[in-house]
Amino acid sequence: MLDEKDPGRNIKLIIAYDGTDFCGWQRQENQRTVQGVIEQALEKIHGKKINLAGSGRTDSGVHAKGQTANFYSGINSIPQENFACAINSRLPQDVRILHSCEVKKDFHARFSACARIYRYFFTLCRPALPCESRYNLNLSRFPDLQTLNAYGRLLLGETDCSVFCGAGDRSKSKNRYIYICRFFMEGEKLVFEIRANAFLRNMVRSISGTLLHYEEKNTPFDNLREIIASKDRSLAGPTLPPNGLFLWKVDY
Amino acid sequence: MLDEKDPGRNIKLIIAYDGTDFCGWQRQENQRTVQGVIEQALEKIHGKKINLAGSGRTDSGVHAKGQTANFYSGINSIPQENFACAINSRLPQDVRILHSCEVKKDFHARFSACARIYRYFFTLCRPALPCESRYNLNLSRFPDLQTLNAYGRLLLGETDCSVFCGAGDRSKSKNRYIYICRFFMEGEKLVFEIRANAFLRNMVRSISGTLLHYEEKNTPFDNLREIIASKDRSLAGPTLPPNGLFLWKVDY
Repeated sequence: MLDEKDPGRNIKLIIAYDGTDFCGWQRQENQRTVQGVIEQALEKIHGKKINLAGSGRTDSGVHAKGQTANFYSGINSIPQENFACAINSRLPQDVRILHSCEVKKDFHARFSACARIYRYFFTLCRPALPCESRYNLNLSRFPDLQTLNAYGRLLLGETDCSVFCGAGDRSKSKNRYIYICRFFMEGEKLVFEIRANAFLRNMVRSISGTLLHYEEKNTPFDNLREIIASKDRSLAGPTLPPNGLFLWKVDY
Repeated sequence: MLDEKDPGRNIKLIIAYDGTDFCGWQRQENQRTVQGVIEQALEKIHGKKINLAGSGRTDSGVHAKGQTANFYSGINSIPQENFACAINSRLPQDVRILHSCEVKKDFHARFSACARIYRYFFTLCRPALPCESRYNLNLSRFPDLQTLNAYGRLLLGETDCSVFCGAGDRSKSKNRYIYICRFFMEGEKLVFEIRANAFLRNMVRSISGTLLHYEEKNTPFDNLREIIASKDRSLAGPTLPPNGLFLWKVDY
């Protein structure tokens, strides 16, 4: 029997999901969410409600290859790596636990994270193939990567991201530390990759949409610098749709 | 006005679709099929029923990157390449016309075809990522490509494919001429590619499933030769699920 003060074993999960049919990560009454379906699976295994802490929310329709979460388990009979299999057998096909392991008691998927990496995928042909449009945004043109990457370098370091902040974000500070912000080709696909300590609401989709918007208009580098410094949300380009976006990895 | 004996312009279409939510290619009463939804779009454009001839059927759940079809149109005002756009604007997102052009009156998507190419895609990690499982089959092991390709070469040329023929196939002759039958890696994916003049029902999924089945059992080359020659369907390996299969291209 567990000591009442002992929360149990701390189990860390690496999670992949197809976000198309989920109303995002976070548990919500009467909505199908990723946290919700995993917590249901955990409740079946433990016979009681289990709280799952994620590294952060993902919006409705956003996918994940490396979402990370943790929960406390009072079950000692399951080897750490077997939680993945036990949970997967109780999950729908559009969410999979890729890995499970026991971590220190004070590990917290959100508060222990030092950085998150997102990737946004684009196809560049026209028209888009139906089997690609679920996980990629189709651009009808071939953008200039050199310009995009020069723009991206403007964001590196500690940056006030107010201009990229979606409505409803409740963060006090809009400053985020951005380590990587780049575009590159992977086969025939264009990939936007961004690594930061944390993200504001819709930030990745707004940054990628804004950089592409101003690149298409051949906006000079210095003008873009001013737009970012303006903190004026109305100057941002379009927020891209969720279907091309993946929470790629969380670093600890 | 059209001469009554003139069927109109013969328009060839290259079509891609995500087969997941279709009951296959062929029009069926009260079922959502690819031919059905395209014929509905053609009827809206022409104001009357239009018959669309495909290069061949694909099964429920099988995808296409290069299905080919043709129809006769009495409309002279649409430039040949604009039929694609006109039809796409009336199609659901999971089917797209990639290309349209006018061809000779006697061109027929099925009877004029000299060969079809199919590709079957496999992921080799474990567990499968949800965003890959819609279009790939996950193999939990890494098969030996040299053995698979040696098996594949047994099928080249004119081959009696009875052993790979699914129930309900009504072809008189089970002989097919196979030009390509090979496995190769494309990035992290395993691809099975087969090109033949025509295919029996479930033939691609049965060949790929059978070759993998006997490769896993380390079956000697000569035994596999006997199995194929036996024409005994009960000796075939499993018919793979449709989700990894794409009708890749039709050659004329």
